[in-house]
Amino acid sequence: MQRHGQVVGVKLDKLDKYKEYHAAVWPEILAKIESCNIRNYSIYFKEVASGVPLLFAYFEYIGDDFDGDMAKMAADPKTQEWWDIMMPMQQPIENRAEGEWWAEMEEAFHMD
Amino acid sequence: MQRHGQVVGVKLDKLDKYKEYHAAVWPEILAKIESCNIRNYSIYFKEVASGVPLLFAYFEYIGDDFDGDMAKMAADPKTQEWWDIMMPMQQPIENRAEGEWWAEMEEAFHMD
Repeated sequence: MQRHGQVVGVKLDKLDKYKEYHAAVWPEILAKIESCNIRNYSIYFKEVASGVPLLFAYFEYIGDDFDGDMAKMAADPKTQEWWDIMMPMQQPIENRAEGEWWAEMEEAFHMD
Repeated sequence: MQRHGQVVGVKLDKLDKYKEYHAAVWPEILAKIESCNIRNYSIYFKEVASGVPLLFAYFEYIGDDFDGDMAKMAADPKTQEWWDIMMPMQQPIENRAEGEWWAEMEEAFHMD
């Protein structure tokens, strides 16, 4: 099992809408996430300083081809429809790696 | 079970030292965390923008008295000794609540 931590910015004036969507995620999106071997997936929000509102994600990956499963998710039309609504509410962080939207973070500690 | 997401800043020039300590956490600290009903505890690092290095923690709490268990942890001399080394490496975020060091974040989404 792999653990992932990721971060992305969110637009403050879109936060309420973002939370509303995430309080009632479309069933097809949840099913696709599950079929792509993601488990125990949480997203947290905090405005860490004035004007710096961030979303942090933690999830566990139980498959054996993370890149392949992520490509499968990205190819799903319903997921694309969902992302078309979510991405304009988000603002990727300045220091993300090339090609990232949600930026992967480095694990500094883990205890089971 | 409760899930918690927390965030705190870290001083960039102390990051290597912080990671070294967390690659070899003292056994007494791990034992105390476990006895205080914390499980599946991860800490991630990301410099989200130039000069904004953050630590993000995710953990699960399996007890029934979170405040009591946190007070128990805070009263432990070895934990205090550990914190006396860790806290000067950290920089609490501007928008933390009163009394917080690691700032609690708001859960925006969860899927098992």
